[in-house]
Amino acid sequence: MDDLINKLREVLGDDGVLSSGEISSRACSYWDSSPLRARVLLRPRSTAEVSAVLAICHGQGAHVITHGGLTGCVNGVEVSSDQVILSLERMNAVEDIDPIGRTATVQAGAILQTVQEEVAGHGLAFPLDLGARGSCTIGGNVSTNAGGINVIRHGMMRDLVLGVEAVLADGTVISAMNQMLKNNAGYDLKQLFIGSEGTLGVVTRVVLRLRRASTSLDTALVALPDFAAVCHLLSQAQSELGDNLCAYEVMWGDYYRAVTAPGWHRPPLDRIHPFYVILESRGVDVERDSERFLALLQRELESGSVVDAVLPKSEAERTSLWNVREDFEAITIHQPTFLYDVSLPIRHMQEYIERVQTAVSQSWPEGCCQVLGHIADGNLHLFITPNAAGSQLHVDVDSCVYSPLSDYGGSVSAEHGIGREKKGWLEHSRSAAEVQLMKTLKRALDPANMLNPGVVFDL
Amino acid sequence: MDDLINKLREVLGDDGVLSSGEISSRACSYWDSSPLRARVLLRPRSTAEVSAVLAICHGQGAHVITHGGLTGCVNGVEVSSDQVILSLERMNAVEDIDPIGRTATVQAGAILQTVQEEVAGHGLAFPLDLGARGSCTIGGNVSTNAGGINVIRHGMMRDLVLGVEAVLADGTVISAMNQMLKNNAGYDLKQLFIGSEGTLGVVTRVVLRLRRASTSLDTALVALPDFAAVCHLLSQAQSELGDNLCAYEVMWGDYYRAVTAPGWHRPPLDRIHPFYVILESRGVDVERDSERFLALLQRELESGSVVDAVLPKSEAERTSLWNVREDFEAITIHQPTFLYDVSLPIRHMQEYIERVQTAVSQSWPEGCCQVLGHIADGNLHLFITPNAAGSQLHVDVDSCVYSPLSDYGGSVSAEHGIGREKKGWLEHSRSAAEVQLMKTLKRALDPANMLNPGVVFDL
Ligand SMILES: Cc1cc2nc3c(=O)[nH]c(=O)nc-3n(C[C@H](O)[C@H](O)[C@H](O)COP(=O)(O)OP(=O)(O)OC[C@H]3O[C@@H](n4cnc5c(N)ncnc54)[C@H](O)[C@@H]3O)c2cc1C
Ligand SMILES: Cc1cc2nc3c(=O)[nH]c(=O)nc-3n(C[C@H](O)[C@H](O)[C@H](O)COP(=O)(O)OP(=O)(O)OC[C@H]3O[C@@H](n4cnc5c(N)ncnc54)[C@H](O)[C@@H]3O)c2cc1C
Repeated sequence: MDDLINKLREVLGDDGVLSSGEISSRACSYWDSSPLRARVLLRPRSTAEVSAVLAICHGQGAHVITHGGLTGCVNGVEVSSDQVILSLERMNAVEDIDPIGRTATVQAGAILQTVQEEVAGHGLAFPLDLGARGSCTIGGNVSTNAGGINVIRHGMMRDLVLGVEAVLADGTVISAMNQMLKNNAGYDLKQLFIGSEGTLGVVTRVVLRLRRASTSLDTALVALPDFAAVCHLLSQAQSELGDNLCAYEVMWGDYYRAVTAPGWHRPPLDRIHPFYVILESRGVDVERDSERFLALLQRELESGSVVDAVLPKSEAERTSLWNVREDFEAITIHQPTFLYDVSLPIRHMQEYIERVQTAVSQSWPEGCCQVLGHIADGNLHLFITPNAAGSQLHVDVDSCVYSPLSDYGGSVSAEHGIGREKKGWLEHSRSAAEVQLMKTLKRALDPANMLNPGVVFDL
Repeated sequence: MDDLINKLREVLGDDGVLSSGEISSRACSYWDSSPLRARVLLRPRSTAEVSAVLAICHGQGAHVITHGGLTGCVNGVEVSSDQVILSLERMNAVEDIDPIGRTATVQAGAILQTVQEEVAGHGLAFPLDLGARGSCTIGGNVSTNAGGINVIRHGMMRDLVLGVEAVLADGTVISAMNQMLKNNAGYDLKQLFIGSEGTLGVVTRVVLRLRRASTSLDTALVALPDFAAVCHLLSQAQSELGDNLCAYEVMWGDYYRAVTAPGWHRPPLDRIHPFYVILESRGVDVERDSERFLALLQRELESGSVVDAVLPKSEAERTSLWNVREDFEAITIHQPTFLYDVSLPIRHMQEYIERVQTAVSQSWPEGCCQVLGHIADGNLHLFITPNAAGSQLHVDVDSCVYSPLSDYGGSVSAEHGIGREKKGWLEHSRSAAEVQLMKTLKRALDPANMLNPGVVFDL
């Protein structure tokens, strides 16, 4: 047993320190079911323990990889066998809910869905929402600045966080657990830890901003004839529903057909249409909100910009509509399938997708390209299944997706981050001076390059 | 003529470099009308010129103080006679408005009100709004993370900025002019320049996030019997008007009486009430929005939680209601008057104000304490006029206001920032480790301590 591990056991106790043998029954991540390997996995119970173990690792020059719910899409949690895993799995408490100040104070390992449910019990809502809600953690959501299906109304994780506590590489605790909407007393340090993918500190606790629960909820799945109709409906919904519009999730026809193929989801609407959209509205005026929602759909159906629509009659029916959007196993079961998450101005989307589809079908005649998008946020997800093999495959597919982006001022990552997977493409979206400044920050906060080394960029 | 000034003239031309003699007819700031003094004042026209002059100043070890509209409340723009002023006054263009992407690209010296008016011409709105709108600049708003009267709905400047271009102390241009709602490709560098009061870089250009213009507008000034009624009305307005509620500005009775004293504003309501509130709602459903607004007021008048109300019948009448809230010259004409900007949870506000008022009247029997607040944001502004003299006066008044704050987890600055004026109180709201990390950032980005030295903290 090495000296490092002895010291760590002194702080965390035996069940706080799992050996490589003990973790080999765990999977690497949501996306990779091969057995987890690492030098050791640490399970601290408190910020003080996180601070103590980081100070020890710092003293010994060990590299530490932080693990949340392991649902991240860019390989940020990959570990090599000489590295230490710091898992937040035992720091999952919802510590406090303040219904008057509308805040929740949670440990970073708390599961998103647990938080959503606990605050709902107080008549409040935490509006971040995404398909991985049952596994992803608040710390992971902070570190990746997660987006999801309600960004159109409530913004990204950055907009929903009031305070953050984080531990720096050397064990220093930065407790910026602000509870107020406004605090301009000095630099807003929490911003450093939001979206920096665990490279600048380990997030241990978070103050979340809650909303009043809405009283009205209206959902529809609609089918549309073309992309112009998709944009037209979005624009109408925004001007007529205003801020009530909380989700506008677009599925390209091929995506819809793949996930509703026989043996997968039952198709709620015919499988023949070019586009499908789930739109959802929440507000505080039950009667009038539904009226406005229905009037909008009615009019758009009559004018032909919407060609078919289904409204769920129960919460169960609503869930099955959302499952079509959120559960894409019918696609990812075909391996390799590469997932992309780009952003670009909405007016270029249709042209961009056509260029990618053409490039894919030229390079891989058997390949598929399935697209869905939070289009109001300028965000598209592409699943590309080349149905081919080759050592250069991933790089070649990346190139089909990312190369055209610069013509539209797009970004190689809207919400998933850079991780290890996209770092070769970082300079495609950011200037050399920007990347240099990122490295300046990393060196200032983690000079030993100890936390998540190789994530976002190599030093 | 010194060597530095010769070099600067080579870059900016003669009219870009004003000597100390040429600037002495200017006032120091909105708050201080004494003649401006400095080594030299620079008026660059472009980011490239800003970069060139900073590189020159860097090479010569000159300290540079950045000037926007000079309306900041914490003495961030104070200059000593050996320092260089960099003024953004000639970089005031609105470069581009994109009605589809809903963005405006502006130079940092653009005046807030100009931007509001130009985007309104495209049926859009830029929702930051504050009393200094006619003089303050977008760069100043970014650097101070300005708040104002619409934060309850639209957030602070940080929430309204998509991209920032800034020049570092050595002249390096960081162009993070992102136009998209979502971009997680690497660290979000713009956050460094928002709210850091010009200590980390000079902001040169900004991409602003615009909103659709609303179609309904309802405003009222109401009088209330006590603070409980103020909180009750806020809560009712939030649940019944939802996100339409865009302003809820509270004036304590003494404030209202001071600004409506004979010779100042005509009082729109009797001057006898304990509290006054301006509430405003904006939405997209003209007919129904006004109905809901009036129904709320009607019901609260009947129940007695609102005791009197006035609704403006024209835009001119609306402006005079707002003038009561925004023009406080009747108070600041008595010098010295000290302005404070604290935040604390709303449930402690009443008690906090009583403690401050008691402390003030005990120390200065002739003193006045006038209060107004963006209370939904947890933000109070206090004007304290001791009607007394003494060298320790400012420090003693500060102490009355800031000392009780720590009992409520409050902040010494909600929106104005720290500047030079509050730096002695920074550690009252932030831990030593936090302040240390702020200094680490400052040293990483501006090792020579060249930009706004002595603002926020001393190195
Ligand atoms: C089905 C599915 C749907 C998804 N939909 C969306 C979506 O709509 N929008 C979206 O944005 N994302 C989406 N994701 C991606 C993912 O869920 C998010 O990135 C999520 O925020 C990751 O949280 P996690 O706890 O699983 O983090 P992990 O995967 O464990 O970690 C992600 C990164 O953050 C770091 N990290 C984790 N916890 C901490 C911590 N406490 N301190 C410091 N660093 C930490 C890790 O080292 C890693 O680099 C989806 C994923 C899946 C599987
Ligand atoms: C009547 C009145 C009402 C006000 N109401 C509010 C309110 O409701 N909410 C609120 O938040 N504030 C309010 N303020 C304060 C003030 O208007 C804001 O702080 C505003 O954002 C300052 O903008 P400015 O251009 O005047 O900045 P300045 O006063 O010129 O500068 C402020 C600070 O920012 C720095 N700075 C300025 N421009 C740049 C730049 N381009 N790059 C880097 N640093 C820069 C300066 O060095 C200084 O430290 C009010 C002020 C007045 C006079």
